[in-house]
Amino acid sequence: MRMVDIITSKRNGNELTDDEISFFVKGYTEGEIPDYQVSALMMAIYFRGMNERETLTLTKVMEDSGDKLDLSGINGIKVDKHSTGGVGDKTSLALTPIVSACGVPIAKMSGRGLGHTGGTIDKLESFDGFNVSISTEEFVRNVNEVGISIMGQTADLAPADKKLYALRDVTGTVENMSLIASSIMSKKLAAGADAIVLDVKTGSGAFMKTLEDSRALAEEMVRIGKGAGRKTVALISDMDQPLGNTVGNAIEVREAIETLMGKGPDDFTELVYALATQMLILGEKASGEEEALAMIKEAVSSGRALDRLAAFVKVQGGDPEQVYHPEKLKVSDKTYTVKAENSGYIEHIVCDEVGIACMMLGGGRASKEDVIDLSVGIRLLKKTGDEVAAGDDLAIIYYTDDANLENAANKLRTSYVITDRKTEKGNLIKDLIK
Amino acid sequence: MRMVDIITSKRNGNELTDDEISFFVKGYTEGEIPDYQVSALMMAIYFRGMNERETLTLTKVMEDSGDKLDLSGINGIKVDKHSTGGVGDKTSLALTPIVSACGVPIAKMSGRGLGHTGGTIDKLESFDGFNVSISTEEFVRNVNEVGISIMGQTADLAPADKKLYALRDVTGTVENMSLIASSIMSKKLAAGADAIVLDVKTGSGAFMKTLEDSRALAEEMVRIGKGAGRKTVALISDMDQPLGNTVGNAIEVREAIETLMGKGPDDFTELVYALATQMLILGEKASGEEEALAMIKEAVSSGRALDRLAAFVKVQGGDPEQVYHPEKLKVSDKTYTVKAENSGYIEHIVCDEVGIACMMLGGGRASKEDVIDLSVGIRLLKKTGDEVAAGDDLAIIYYTDDANLENAANKLRTSYVITDRKTEKGNLIKDLIK
Repeated sequence: MRMVDIITSKRNGNELTDDEISFFVKGYTEGEIPDYQVSALMMAIYFRGMNERETLTLTKVMEDSGDKLDLSGINGIKVDKHSTGGVGDKTSLALTPIVSACGVPIAKMSGRGLGHTGGTIDKLESFDGFNVSISTEEFVRNVNEVGISIMGQTADLAPADKKLYALRDVTGTVENMSLIASSIMSKKLAAGADAIVLDVKTGSGAFMKTLEDSRALAEEMVRIGKGAGRKTVALISDMDQPLGNTVGNAIEVREAIETLMGKGPDDFTELVYALATQMLILGEKASGEEEALAMIKEAVSSGRALDRLAAFVKVQGGDPEQVYHPEKLKVSDKTYTVKAENSGYIEHIVCDEVGIACMMLGGGRASKEDVIDLSVGIRLLKKTGDEVAAGDDLAIIYYTDDANLENAANKLRTSYVITDRKTEKGNLIKDLIK
Repeated sequence: MRMVDIITSKRNGNELTDDEISFFVKGYTEGEIPDYQVSALMMAIYFRGMNERETLTLTKVMEDSGDKLDLSGINGIKVDKHSTGGVGDKTSLALTPIVSACGVPIAKMSGRGLGHTGGTIDKLESFDGFNVSISTEEFVRNVNEVGISIMGQTADLAPADKKLYALRDVTGTVENMSLIASSIMSKKLAAGADAIVLDVKTGSGAFMKTLEDSRALAEEMVRIGKGAGRKTVALISDMDQPLGNTVGNAIEVREAIETLMGKGPDDFTELVYALATQMLILGEKASGEEEALAMIKEAVSSGRALDRLAAFVKVQGGDPEQVYHPEKLKVSDKTYTVKAENSGYIEHIVCDEVGIACMMLGGGRASKEDVIDLSVGIRLLKKTGDEVAAGDDLAIIYYTDDANLENAANKLRTSYVITDRKTEKGNLIKDLIK
């Protein structure tokens, strides 16, 4: 088998065989096939696409390229959640304690933030003493003991995807639905859960800008998940403005805790409940949406969801007092208020700009090596659909260093798109794909 | 300017600017842009194509990437000839002395053979003592002294094309008309002639298998040549069977000399005269085809063309006696006759197979480092359109080593496609593009 023949075959519009897909992924991962041949193949795939079988095979071969988490030591149906990423997306922090409190074991690997988007692992480190670098054994034991564990990506999951994605990123071959879906799903499959709930973001702040594309990606991922024998559903949710009212690290943890106390922002609460509903159904703890929602509300109102978060934080070395008293999480007390320059209605809030403003404050990473300041952040006082007058407060910045305040404030101010005509906030949840 | 943006732009169907084309060609040649980005761009170009301006710019940038021959020391209009390559293509050996004898100075760079096709430089070395490795100064001086010089590709012409072609060869991105045309033309432009006559082969033994593709390539190259300010025309000629009756090195030189003596095979003579006609017109030695043809016939019948070859061979260190007595060129006297197994009519002769048979005998190179045996070769006794009976002689093999004779003979035998129904030999010259 020769790589040039595989490239030419795809270029000519043929389907690749399973053997051909396996050959190129393994050969590339092991350094036997050079990157210049793989990038040419990726471009041919960009133009010719891959069918359902090819996409599933690519996903499985990448899943098999490295470590796979063995969650067999955990009782029950393990349900994982994945978000395609956005700004203010603290969902896992509120979602997992609720679902766990309802009886679904949560064993989740999460990542750190890069660029304008934050990461769950960074946010968790806002709890004093919290340890994300635990062994797989501790991970499994913690789930069995307290019903939930979240760890950083220490295992070498789907290294073929990692190498392939890095190549696609610099060769203009990212934007293909099969390649995007297989990249995400290969890691999720290797992470070992029995069922997967996907949160596919849509809108200007999402990787997929249009609902049509978001739906296509969601469908592709659900097909792959099912094809690989995992129960899979996908929600499509809005990312045309940041999720909830906060962007940062400790400040987002506070908001997640407030949500577990039943005092969270409407949009964020809606998304958390909707995702939890699907997780309870896939985890076979509820037979339908109505039953699931009742369970969720009870877990929150009874305080069991909050207790679950506290137990999880404690077993991973964090301070559970900060769960019950979120004001003890360190958010900077130096504040600056961004005001509206014009009157009108907020049409949307450019997510990437808000994320970059937070990064400028020190709350995000421009490169992997950056150390982030967990105490800085942004609180949005106005959101899409709100009416504002010139001079009204739009948002509060929590900062520690004066140096970048002005730039960050300007960035944040211009992220608000204000228009003359009345606007609507729109539906947060756009669709459910199963 | 970032390479990934250039790739994405072409991928999305945009035209590349001249600056973008220059940026990637220079960056790649200088090792600043990695091959994995260039191969992705080549695949995007495969799918999106390039327009006339882009193709011309690419050609000129590649032309400018290395040495350029300065032929200004040669008086008159220098006319070059280029063939897209075939089997039995000894055209330059007979063509250049005729054209030179009619007053057009010939300063030609030629290549060595690789794979199933031979090279003019190897063939010339059949003359005892002939030296192809001369300096550019000697090259120019020889043209001024004897009217003709042919040298090996010692100068570093169009290195960008060399690097790009090697990459395209292993990434499934050869087959694009703009890329093929610019590759050929960049070297031709750098070789410095004022006018160019192209011999675009068509048929099963040619790079372009169909007349349609051959015509498209010819048109693309003529456009580039004119766009670069060189008078350019292209003939499209048949390569559905080897050209002339011989394949090899010394044996092909003998046939070229016989043609200069007026005793060459019809098809080969026809092609040489047609190309010479165009060269005389572009070189402004004849005002039309009729006048050109008369000059050509006179140059041959008077012996002046043969004398011109002898003078050229002599000035480059070869033995002119071998021109006047081609039987002195060393062709092996060990022969083997291949016979027809079936009766019928010859439909065509698979050129590649004949070329490979010659390579098996030692007359061609499988890899660049191979040393070739100039004395071996093949004489075709039957050609397309001929009727044969089982047991008739098809071809004679001239060999030196018994080891590969049987394989070569089998290859040669199966290269003859014999059919029941009457066949025709077809036109050698298919079209003229100007």
